[in-house]
Amino acid sequence: MRLSRYFLPILRETPKEAEIISHRLMLRAGMMRQEAAGIYAFLPLGLRVLNKINTIVREEQNRAGAIELLMPTVQSAELWRESGRYDAYGKEMLRIKDRHAREMLYGPTNEEMITDIFRAYVRSYRDLPLNLYHIQWKFRDEVRPRFGLMRGREFLMKDAYSFDLDQAGARHSYNKMFVAYLRTFARMGLKAIPMVAETGPIGGNLSHEFIILASTGESEVFCHRDYLEFDVPGEDIDFDNVDALQSTVDKWTSLYAATSEMHDAAAFEKLPQGSQMSARGIEVGHIFYFGTKYSEPMKAVVTGPDGTEKPVHMGSYGIGPSRLVAAIIEASHDDAGIKWPEAVAPFKVAILNLKQGDGATDAASEKLYAALQAKGVDVLYHDLDERPGSKFATADLIGIPWQVLIGPKGLAAGQFELKKRADGSREMLSPDDVLARLVPRF
Amino acid sequence: MRLSRYFLPILRETPKEAEIISHRLMLRAGMMRQEAAGIYAFLPLGLRVLNKINTIVREEQNRAGAIELLMPTVQSAELWRESGRYDAYGKEMLRIKDRHAREMLYGPTNEEMITDIFRAYVRSYRDLPLNLYHIQWKFRDEVRPRFGLMRGREFLMKDAYSFDLDQAGARHSYNKMFVAYLRTFARMGLKAIPMVAETGPIGGNLSHEFIILASTGESEVFCHRDYLEFDVPGEDIDFDNVDALQSTVDKWTSLYAATSEMHDAAAFEKLPQGSQMSARGIEVGHIFYFGTKYSEPMKAVVTGPDGTEKPVHMGSYGIGPSRLVAAIIEASHDDAGIKWPEAVAPFKVAILNLKQGDGATDAASEKLYAALQAKGVDVLYHDLDERPGSKFATADLIGIPWQVLIGPKGLAAGQFELKKRADGSREMLSPDDVLARLVPRF
Repeated sequence: MRLSRYFLPILRETPKEAEIISHRLMLRAGMMRQEAAGIYAFLPLGLRVLNKINTIVREEQNRAGAIELLMPTVQSAELWRESGRYDAYGKEMLRIKDRHAREMLYGPTNEEMITDIFRAYVRSYRDLPLNLYHIQWKFRDEVRPRFGLMRGREFLMKDAYSFDLDQAGARHSYNKMFVAYLRTFARMGLKAIPMVAETGPIGGNLSHEFIILASTGESEVFCHRDYLEFDVPGEDIDFDNVDALQSTVDKWTSLYAATSEMHDAAAFEKLPQGSQMSARGIEVGHIFYFGTKYSEPMKAVVTGPDGTEKPVHMGSYGIGPSRLVAAIIEASHDDAGIKWPEAVAPFKVAILNLKQGDGATDAASEKLYAALQAKGVDVLYHDLDERPGSKFATADLIGIPWQVLIGPKGLAAGQFELKKRADGSREMLSPDDVLARLVPRF
Repeated sequence: MRLSRYFLPILRETPKEAEIISHRLMLRAGMMRQEAAGIYAFLPLGLRVLNKINTIVREEQNRAGAIELLMPTVQSAELWRESGRYDAYGKEMLRIKDRHAREMLYGPTNEEMITDIFRAYVRSYRDLPLNLYHIQWKFRDEVRPRFGLMRGREFLMKDAYSFDLDQAGARHSYNKMFVAYLRTFARMGLKAIPMVAETGPIGGNLSHEFIILASTGESEVFCHRDYLEFDVPGEDIDFDNVDALQSTVDKWTSLYAATSEMHDAAAFEKLPQGSQMSARGIEVGHIFYFGTKYSEPMKAVVTGPDGTEKPVHMGSYGIGPSRLVAAIIEASHDDAGIKWPEAVAPFKVAILNLKQGDGATDAASEKLYAALQAKGVDVLYHDLDERPGSKFATADLIGIPWQVLIGPKGLAAGQFELKKRADGSREMLSPDDVLARLVPRF
């Protein structure tokens, strides 16, 4: 993408309304704009990051055997009366009356609707296990929306729902998502630690939150330091292997880890001093097993091998991709701006032409731009007539992992400067060497 | 995808509530489910088609220079008061009050919001032309939603908005979208004919609808038969070439073409008899130029080359991907089911193992499945223990373009049967030849 043909409205001043760093940086970097309290538009740069996150989430859900569908945002109140949550949910539910005065709502979550879909089609244990997920906009009418995308009202959620004949099967389904989540966050460059959690309005008796550590995180968490060194399962892990998954989950839940709500100070202090870690954390995923809480009242039953009907055992599994955009920034930034992990960066490479309009730098920049485009690399070519300092500031602010600086001095020696945003390191390299660094081998 | 691990709830009976063929076939093929009047969930097979359509729409928007962002579904009433449309829009607008009794709405379209985004950032003619689009759910509270996705209440729309300094620039932006739409529909296997249209509640004085012909179409249209033979511009067309685009648009608007609302019987009857074509049509796209209708009241102005401020000239450009799923079925089906054009098919290939559990057919099916998967071909392997007739019926119903029938008799001769859904033709081929047919060359 040529910047001259892009829409990247950088703000030079720090917006006053933003209270946390991710919100400030997203506004300054032209990633988002508030359209109403807690309701945001994703500008082109922000949407690119959101899409990269969605792609990783989707690949790992599919790998774990979950199947994607897409439920609507507006739901009928009737469904929620069946589960008993319509009245219980409170004012966070955005209630709507249509032109015929029918009671509707903007879905804050989809346990009821997915249970309705399940019961409409599935009759036999032979069709289980089943895990259905979607990535769709949700609305929670927070009384005081704040912190940008961290606590917005309209937000994107990936929610998966598993269906099993019995508790043992449901446990395996839960473990699949547990492992998928470990992989999902690791691929985004995040250290996520699963912590036992309360189940809240979703219900049930088994639940983990996945928490990433960030010095600017929303809440305090406590855990064993060894979690930082745990290996995440590779992509060859067999999701059908019950024992292998259980032992992975056992390992990742073997050491102390708790949010402040669940913190047991006495247990924590029994850890060796050097292993006690308290830090700020951000919740980026939440998984639940809740048995027959919805299937019983909503009559989602299957015929078992013995011929009798049983309500299915269910779990639900949430990740907020829009929240993750902000959470990743909280975990990865410096004074100059965002430092995107490569897997979620809006562009992998920025080409900074340091003397726009100069025949030699223009030609070299165009040539590199064309070569990277041809190899399918996401590249932003800063081709505006701005001074080098302004181009450096923009590239650092928007956090592009690799920056290629093309100026007359380097060119005279046949070299470009390659800067790595993560650590600020710089190298002078020939154009061919720059290309070799940036293009993955085929 | 293995059918044994998929969620494809085929209905054997024709659902009574469905009035048109696309609605019936989508329900029978397990593509969608109604969750409330005019509100549908896309089941996995339906979502696959929707995503393929979105990808084509997106590629052609990007090719024409439009830039993707993503606006929220819920909007503030304030914005619509600025344009004067809040009261004018009527009962089709789903109005919402949040917990603080603030007036909100579920966006039926986004002229106001995009104008608000534009005016927040763009000050100079140097930043023009600009075309911003998104693909987002919309809601129109139809009094009698019907015909499934053809006239739903919650529907997906791609809406693009162009901004130019003057009318000449806006005309070029309009032409870009006109040509992008010709390409978009052609890539989906559709013959779309642009017809002069009324502008309705969007406003303005230049507008075209893109109509596809289908014997079960919603309305009658009249046009010159030669449109069926017109060439659609190739992907090498230069969208910056003002004259080339204008002459393409001139050609595509040179002959008579009108919906029933705009029909001029006298003019139509002046065509040579053999050129008069009247047919049923379905609207699949609609483009508008409306000048300063929104920019004036909402003060979206830029400084021109002469230093004075001028309201920008705008256009908007809509395609309904969810509606297109149904429209394509209306245009392409037979008594046995859907006939997907390959570009939008949920799977390109179905493998029908005609004797599940037989060592030889299982091994041959698995081998072909693995080979196609490895080449990135979307393939559905029907691996359930069902009789051949049932597998044929399912594959035809869900409309997979290529079906590979693997049975003991063919295998004994070292052959598979390759069936083409479009015309029902069948061929006996060696496994290698089947693979060569189905895998695009690299």
